[in-house]
Amino acid sequence: MAIRVGIYGYGNLGRGVECAVKQNDDMELVGVFTRRDPSTVKTALNSKVYSASNVLDFVNEIDVLVICGGSATDLPKQTPELSKYFSVVDSFDTHAKIPEHFANVDKVCKENSTVSLISAGWDPGMFSLNRLYASSVLSNSSYYTFWGKGVSQGHSDAIRRIKGVKDAKQYTIPVETALERVRKGENPDLTTREKHLRECFVVLEDGADAVAIENEIKTMPNYFADYDTTVHFISQDELIEKHSGIPHGGFVICSGTTGVNGENKHVIEYSLKLDSNPEFTASVLVAYARAVARLSKEKSFGCKTVFDIAPAYLSKLSAEEIRKNLL
Amino acid sequence: MAIRVGIYGYGNLGRGVECAVKQNDDMELVGVFTRRDPSTVKTALNSKVYSASNVLDFVNEIDVLVICGGSATDLPKQTPELSKYFSVVDSFDTHAKIPEHFANVDKVCKENSTVSLISAGWDPGMFSLNRLYASSVLSNSSYYTFWGKGVSQGHSDAIRRIKGVKDAKQYTIPVETALERVRKGENPDLTTREKHLRECFVVLEDGADAVAIENEIKTMPNYFADYDTTVHFISQDELIEKHSGIPHGGFVICSGTTGVNGENKHVIEYSLKLDSNPEFTASVLVAYARAVARLSKEKSFGCKTVFDIAPAYLSKLSAEEIRKNLL
Repeated sequence: MAIRVGIYGYGNLGRGVECAVKQNDDMELVGVFTRRDPSTVKTALNSKVYSASNVLDFVNEIDVLVICGGSATDLPKQTPELSKYFSVVDSFDTHAKIPEHFANVDKVCKENSTVSLISAGWDPGMFSLNRLYASSVLSNSSYYTFWGKGVSQGHSDAIRRIKGVKDAKQYTIPVETALERVRKGENPDLTTREKHLRECFVVLEDGADAVAIENEIKTMPNYFADYDTTVHFISQDELIEKHSGIPHGGFVICSGTTGVNGENKHVIEYSLKLDSNPEFTASVLVAYARAVARLSKEKSFGCKTVFDIAPAYLSKLSAEEIRKNLL
Repeated sequence: MAIRVGIYGYGNLGRGVECAVKQNDDMELVGVFTRRDPSTVKTALNSKVYSASNVLDFVNEIDVLVICGGSATDLPKQTPELSKYFSVVDSFDTHAKIPEHFANVDKVCKENSTVSLISAGWDPGMFSLNRLYASSVLSNSSYYTFWGKGVSQGHSDAIRRIKGVKDAKQYTIPVETALERVRKGENPDLTTREKHLRECFVVLEDGADAVAIENEIKTMPNYFADYDTTVHFISQDELIEKHSGIPHGGFVICSGTTGVNGENKHVIEYSLKLDSNPEFTASVLVAYARAVARLSKEKSFGCKTVFDIAPAYLSKLSAEEIRKNLL
């Protein structure tokens, strides 16, 4: 029987989950749940749309609810609340608050016999897995995470809030020379500035002061001041034509030594090049939704992360098939 | 209490396990078990050496036995036999025979309440994991495995068996243009010849016929005939000086699409650059030995592969620590 999936929240991520469920023939989408008026929400694949306030009517129709809210304010409330009734997956990505979120969700899951997996996606998620695998195998090692080239929504928003800016897109770019040093196993100490560049494409309002705005961007604390930042002023048409995508990606590189005296060096590198950040994140969520459905059947209740899931649970293939074909 | 590890078989891999156990402070090495006369075996770190015939005396002293025999003839016998008494880890790498080996070991483990993990290492092992994760996340995808640059022991041995060859080392090298096509997500059909090159460094016996030997290498069925092969004749001194290492590595690259009509492309790449193939393999075995010790305590008996092990079991850090530091 197909795994019955619900989507809670319909933005770019929810849309990605809708497409990913369609790609997996062992799953079916029950519907999209939105806080907006359902009649105003048209989905990419014409899926059914319901009001979020009616989601409890579907407790017996949904095996896993994929929560597609934001980490800042939605997920800290939605994931524990919905875990009372559903097994869920979320993409909570505020790294510093993961332990707190985990504790909140775990308590609810254990009280209500549900399984919830938090912080799936690529970072946290696939990158976290690679940090864990690499540092477990190479016990004497260091790892580095680089992001990009890709769009940072937060940095793009920060530029858009500047007076005189009509629109903007910001790319985070890893510094190639830093990547190379890490790949060589040099184990360098790298400052923020040495790891990533920031490149901004900005559309000005009529009559705005380009020099002042460029300066305001480059000196903005936290967002840009600690980076080498490039600012390009372009037209709205060019921004739409060339910078409408939401690509992202990055690298987790771990180097370590083995031998009698650490005489042999090893480098493990994992990288992602993603045309669509939300669609890839959604694909990870959907693979973990499969695992959650299985764990729920096994009554392995509680909050989980990617670290707790045996890889076989992610595949729609049987244990025999994956041993035969992938091992 | 430390995890008590035994090493069964002491070649390059056993030596690597000896060094890896030393690097992990939650483990201790009980001893090395050899089929040779123990008094003739001197280990890298002066570990205790016992006769393999006495290994059953250590049933209560060893939590996990790491079996370091060869896949061709040792492991198909040793792993099932030793699984009667011990929880074990092996690096069985004859891909086509994994299902048979699994079935043999699983039966013994279940009859004797032991946990055995087979086919750990990097391929099978870390590469297998990456094939599984990538193809589970990107359900509409293809993956490619490339090996090298590194020494192939089997191909080096095949050259050494040729009359007139005194010594030889063979490197398997991935073809850069093929890698690039796969990385771009072109999803190409690649022949054996298009994926890897073979480079041979050969020391001739006095008076041997270089031209005939080069021809014999290049036309050798299975080993070289299907590849572009380069042969360099060098002195024994140069071979020792420049080609004594056992480096290896490779790439698993998966590309797939998402979206309403597969309009977005994603590339996941995992690569290893290893100064010492056996030491890295040993490090993987030791991380999985930790998992086996834990599963054995949990009485999760049977044969396992890397697909069955939740990543958290590999780390010596607590669940709280890995969530806080690595997620």
